[in-house]
Amino acid sequence: MAGSTIGTLFKVTTWGESHGEALGVVIDGCPSGIPLSEKEIQIFLDRRKPGKTTISTPRQEDDKVEILSGVFEGKTTGAPISMLVRNQSQRSKDYQNIAENYRPGHADYTFDVKYGFRDYRGGGRSSGRETIGRVAAGAIASKLLSTLGITLLAYTKAIGPIEIDPMKFNKDFISSTPTCMPDSDASIEAEKYMQQCMREYDSSGGVVECRINHVPAGLGEPVFDKLDASLAKALLSIGGVKAFEIGDGIKASLSRGSENNDNFIVKDEKIAKATNHSGGVLGGISDGSELIVRAFFKPTPSIFTTQKTVNQQGVETEIRIEGRHDPVIVPRAVVVVESMCAITIVDQLLINMTSKLDSIQAFYQK
Amino acid sequence: MAGSTIGTLFKVTTWGESHGEALGVVIDGCPSGIPLSEKEIQIFLDRRKPGKTTISTPRQEDDKVEILSGVFEGKTTGAPISMLVRNQSQRSKDYQNIAENYRPGHADYTFDVKYGFRDYRGGGRSSGRETIGRVAAGAIASKLLSTLGITLLAYTKAIGPIEIDPMKFNKDFISSTPTCMPDSDASIEAEKYMQQCMREYDSSGGVVECRINHVPAGLGEPVFDKLDASLAKALLSIGGVKAFEIGDGIKASLSRGSENNDNFIVKDEKIAKATNHSGGVLGGISDGSELIVRAFFKPTPSIFTTQKTVNQQGVETEIRIEGRHDPVIVPRAVVVVESMCAITIVDQLLINMTSKLDSIQAFYQK
Amino acid sequence: MAGSTIGTLFKVTTWGESHGEALGVVIDGCPSGIPLSEKEIQIFLDRRKPGKTTISTPRQEDDKVEILSGVFEGKTTGAPISMLVRNQSQRSKDYQNIAENYRPGHADYTFDVKYGFRDYRGGGRSSGRETIGRVAAGAIASKLLSTLGITLLAYTKAIGPIEIDPMKFNKDFISSTPTCMPDSDASIEAEKYMQQCMREYDSSGGVVECRINHVPAGLGEPVFDKLDASLAKALLSIGGVKAFEIGDGIKASLSRGSENNDNFIVKDEKIAKATNHSGGVLGGISDGSELIVRAFFKPTPSIFTTQKTVNQQGVETEIRIEGRHDPVIVPRAVVVVESMCAITIVDQLLINMTSKLDSIQAFYQK
Amino acid sequence: MAGSTIGTLFKVTTWGESHGEALGVVIDGCPSGIPLSEKEIQIFLDRRKPGKTTISTPRQEDDKVEILSGVFEGKTTGAPISMLVRNQSQRSKDYQNIAENYRPGHADYTFDVKYGFRDYRGGGRSSGRETIGRVAAGAIASKLLSTLGITLLAYTKAIGPIEIDPMKFNKDFISSTPTCMPDSDASIEAEKYMQQCMREYDSSGGVVECRINHVPAGLGEPVFDKLDASLAKALLSIGGVKAFEIGDGIKASLSRGSENNDNFIVKDEKIAKATNHSGGVLGGISDGSELIVRAFFKPTPSIFTTQKTVNQQGVETEIRIEGRHDPVIVPRAVVVVESMCAITIVDQLLINMTSKLDSIQAFYQK
Repeated sequence: MAGSTIGTLFKVTTWGESHGEALGVVIDGCPSGIPLSEKEIQIFLDRRKPGKTTISTPRQEDDKVEILSGVFEGKTTGAPISMLVRNQSQRSKDYQNIAENYRPGHADYTFDVKYGFRDYRGGGRSSGRETIGRVAAGAIASKLLSTLGITLLAYTKAIGPIEIDPMKFNKDFISSTPTCMPDSDASIEAEKYMQQCMREYDSSGGVVECRINHVPAGLGEPVFDKLDASLAKALLSIGGVKAFEIGDGIKASLSRGSENNDNFIVKDEKIAKATNHSGGVLGGISDGSELIVRAFFKPTPSIFTTQKTVNQQGVETEIRIEGRHDPVIVPRAVVVVESMCAITIVDQLLINMTSKLDSIQAFYQK
Repeated sequence: MAGSTIGTLFKVTTWGESHGEALGVVIDGCPSGIPLSEKEIQIFLDRRKPGKTTISTPRQEDDKVEILSGVFEGKTTGAPISMLVRNQSQRSKDYQNIAENYRPGHADYTFDVKYGFRDYRGGGRSSGRETIGRVAAGAIASKLLSTLGITLLAYTKAIGPIEIDPMKFNKDFISSTPTCMPDSDASIEAEKYMQQCMREYDSSGGVVECRINHVPAGLGEPVFDKLDASLAKALLSIGGVKAFEIGDGIKASLSRGSENNDNFIVKDEKIAKATNHSGGVLGGISDGSELIVRAFFKPTPSIFTTQKTVNQQGVETEIRIEGRHDPVIVPRAVVVVESMCAITIVDQLLINMTSKLDSIQAFYQK
Repeated sequence: MAGSTIGTLFKVTTWGESHGEALGVVIDGCPSGIPLSEKEIQIFLDRRKPGKTTISTPRQEDDKVEILSGVFEGKTTGAPISMLVRNQSQRSKDYQNIAENYRPGHADYTFDVKYGFRDYRGGGRSSGRETIGRVAAGAIASKLLSTLGITLLAYTKAIGPIEIDPMKFNKDFISSTPTCMPDSDASIEAEKYMQQCMREYDSSGGVVECRINHVPAGLGEPVFDKLDASLAKALLSIGGVKAFEIGDGIKASLSRGSENNDNFIVKDEKIAKATNHSGGVLGGISDGSELIVRAFFKPTPSIFTTQKTVNQQGVETEIRIEGRHDPVIVPRAVVVVESMCAITIVDQLLINMTSKLDSIQAFYQK
Repeated sequence: MAGSTIGTLFKVTTWGESHGEALGVVIDGCPSGIPLSEKEIQIFLDRRKPGKTTISTPRQEDDKVEILSGVFEGKTTGAPISMLVRNQSQRSKDYQNIAENYRPGHADYTFDVKYGFRDYRGGGRSSGRETIGRVAAGAIASKLLSTLGITLLAYTKAIGPIEIDPMKFNKDFISSTPTCMPDSDASIEAEKYMQQCMREYDSSGGVVECRINHVPAGLGEPVFDKLDASLAKALLSIGGVKAFEIGDGIKASLSRGSENNDNFIVKDEKIAKATNHSGGVLGGISDGSELIVRAFFKPTPSIFTTQKTVNQQGVETEIRIEGRHDPVIVPRAVVVVESMCAITIVDQLLINMTSKLDSIQAFYQK
């Protein structure tokens, strides 16, 4: 049971269902004295809002965040930060036949087996709305990282077979294209592809990439809590993610040592790497170069054609899903991936870099 | 710091360095009353032994396990099981230039930054020998799972560009081929490929696949501790793994909902799935079908050509690695992947399935 | 930092400050299918309400709980249960001189040192109001335990020097006396004592005892996570608790083995103990007899005489606390002690009693 | 199950039984670069050695520690430190009737219920020998603390009814008296008392006090992970401890606010307290004054008179324990209490004092 908390020193606990009263998050372990406003959180939440483009659900989710604790006179106090977003009148009737029939690709069946019971109005905890809490926490984590000069940049790398061209990479397009692609040409292609999917009552998968810069070398633990292992868990914990890569990832498995090894060089009087096949991690520990990770999303399971399935009584039947669902989750998931990366790195920073530790070591280096 | 422990109720802690006195593991949370002998552990450890084939290091590692606690009169007592393998006279002189120069693709540099200090005789904690503890724990986890009818089967899926042909899959070849491939033709090709790599003083990456059968539906938590997220972390925590997939994984990101959704069916009077694109997990919870995961390994970074690098003083230099290293780690990593999967699933089983819970729920179902 | 979460499988996270927007709790790991209403939670919360008697603060705290998630159609779903109590217009002006001057016996100074910053309107996280979340969680934990026949009974054992007489123990008085003492004569004495304290602008300490019956033998871990060690931590985590005892506790340190050992006997055809000096725990594991624990509370530090202290600038000064404070916290803390015990035992139950474990062991007992 | 690990960032895992092959400990999270030798560990272990005085067991335990990992060229590497002590030929025949009959006051019965199985040769994990691992870890923790100027001083405060006189306190006596009392007169009285107990085949309880100086203010978390709550858990986790106090502890429950509050003063230009009733903790956070905690031990349950009990078949019987047991555990437990305090405080130091945190806060204080 449990499993709604992530992090050791920067602990994030999410709660709430798609059709319950509200959704929220408690962040325990945020340093004190950090200016924090609902407005800053809202900027992140608005990035995951639907209804903005032709390729997202027309459902309106006017998710206004409320900070309930942990902030006093505009600054964090070190106490847990509790944030809440009220659910609004959801059209629950759309979801009525979910109660009886297991939607293919959804978690209806596994929830029923696990809990013997399910909030059948929507995905419950498996709903994409659960990510509201993650994004609110991510807003805070990103802010903490930015004070140390660490920046995160996530974007859509691919939608179905349409991939961005690295030569056309332009950061500005990420927020201006409906696909969150940093390549406007690929974005137009992807939109066309999505419109075709929608015409065919179908959906598509895709890929989100996140680049994290200025992470100091030395983060992550050498054995089970490797930095990349923690990032893998954080990204696989997002609904619909089926694969994870760091650096060259899968390509590395096809290549040779002479191709994949990154030579060390001296650059600006500091140790650096000539290439970055490793994606910024060696032996589970950050190596000072850019962290590059990718999350691979499966297509939205809610499609509008008739599908074969089984009902709660174990009888074969058919289901036709109605309602308003994103034909591709990827553009809205960009900020979720960014948030999970930020949360993971803040936790590692708090774990690793202890000033007392410095004092202890300094004692023996005298 | 820390980070050498994995698991919540089935807790595995490894310790030891490649060139220290010994390596070992403490397993805390193993149920009592289970027959356990050193012989059973040794069978697993022998599967990761080098020196058996032409494509592995000729280094002899005669790793004999000793059980120091937790077993009485041949049965587990419920107390922590401590196991130890003594290191034998390693040819430390091979490693002398590691002390000064950072090996490309290795964790020498990141360890130096993190700890300000390093056991330069070998990889220390980043050595493949650290997996001895994991495999000893995996032997126990696999045994526990087998009593519930849960079986694990891991094997080499690819070495560099040579992949197995699913049509030629034969389980028996896994233990008889030097590559641990279940396809003898692919294995011959892969051996040839590796011999070419070795002639060119180079190394290769590859892929390990693990199939887990008869896992009951309902394992895993719906949010951060999804079963696949936990497996991802467990596999990425193995040195050299750069990507993780479950089910169709990356392919799912390219496909459409109509292709990727698995229809539910009734089979043998039970709910099942017509296909298994999901790889046995829906919404982070096992769905009762076969779990299929893949770990993608980078090529061994120890290659025997001269490489450019930087030394501890931050000066550019060259390094020529000597010693005896596996040109491909994959065949020896098969049992490590299997072990990490087994450890992860046992932990989830102990967490999820509580009889008192059953009693509590039964109370209200009366 | 962090530290607002307790429990491994039954995880309780509290948040909120005395003078913030709201206080609340997230309970992650509650089994599904349990009927649960706000009314049941409210009964527990009302037990910690002030203003009911002459010996408690006249401050009105009309704490109405709202369940925001984890319950559907009146039953728990297995998802995190989020509960919230809004703070009402607190007379913050009473607290103005706290901002400047450190109240003796309070956490003002330690919070300022730790966080460099403090919500000076009240105790913040060190306020007694933080226990609202604990009690809401305790209501659920108690309910779960009651389905297994496990009952908890907490009461005031002493207020200052006035102790209950075990010969006059009557459970019914606990809820009817203003002191929560199960001895009405002692209660009258204690009331008199408190009125004298109040006349002298002073406060008093006291003791809460909790008896837990029908806990099955076998709960608790033999080393660091002993059942009594976990209870000690749970009770010491309540503000103002300065000591903890189980069974004979301190008296045991004065006695001899021949006095303190409990002989085993057979009673109703089951193994039992002739006496219960151990307080229900042997070697950190429940022995099947009644669990008896005690929490010793210091006197309320808010007293209304002038006290010497230091201000934030490190200058000696005087402080005269105003406002409305309980002259003794003990009667209101009774339900908090009961709740922390219930939370601790539910967590141990979920950890210990796994049906799969039973299956594994059964496999070898065949 | 599990439960053999304590600590979040300074993680201590003990293993081993009284009559198994060996006992040991893995310490994960020790900072790198700290000089460490087996000799330093041995000094701590020798403090818990029996057989030195007339009031301890004549049993010889020549416990020689071996460091197996985590130390290279005499310095810690940051990797887990594994330490081992081999058990020597124990006179197991002494313990034969334990296999059948439950010893009163021991954990034989609770282990049998919990595990359905027990290493009947001795206490197994409930043996005092389990503390070997704690003390080895404590030696390291104490060393780390000493580099920050933090000192720990533990000693026997009472044996049975014989208590030390604070007026006669002399630190030097702690290591020279057989009782570990800092008052030689009380020590002589206590020896006499113990000899009487031994003549009557009986045993005695007692109290260990630990004073910790120069702990910086600001350690500990305000809610569940209060510094005193963590210390309580750490000390109650030692076998035989039945109560815990910090500062005035139980006396505080009898006193009034005007007596118990510690006034803040300025001393040596720093904020200090005029008295220390709090024992160095306010609101769960260290206040910069001396930490004073007490652990109350029950009498050794192994007494040499005939006792009534029940056997494994649930039949009433008698038991007469033989062998060599300490008539009072307290003098040998002094170093165990000191070790558990040191471990707890090091963990809190690593958790609390992050330099990055300092940087983040500094960013906003500009």
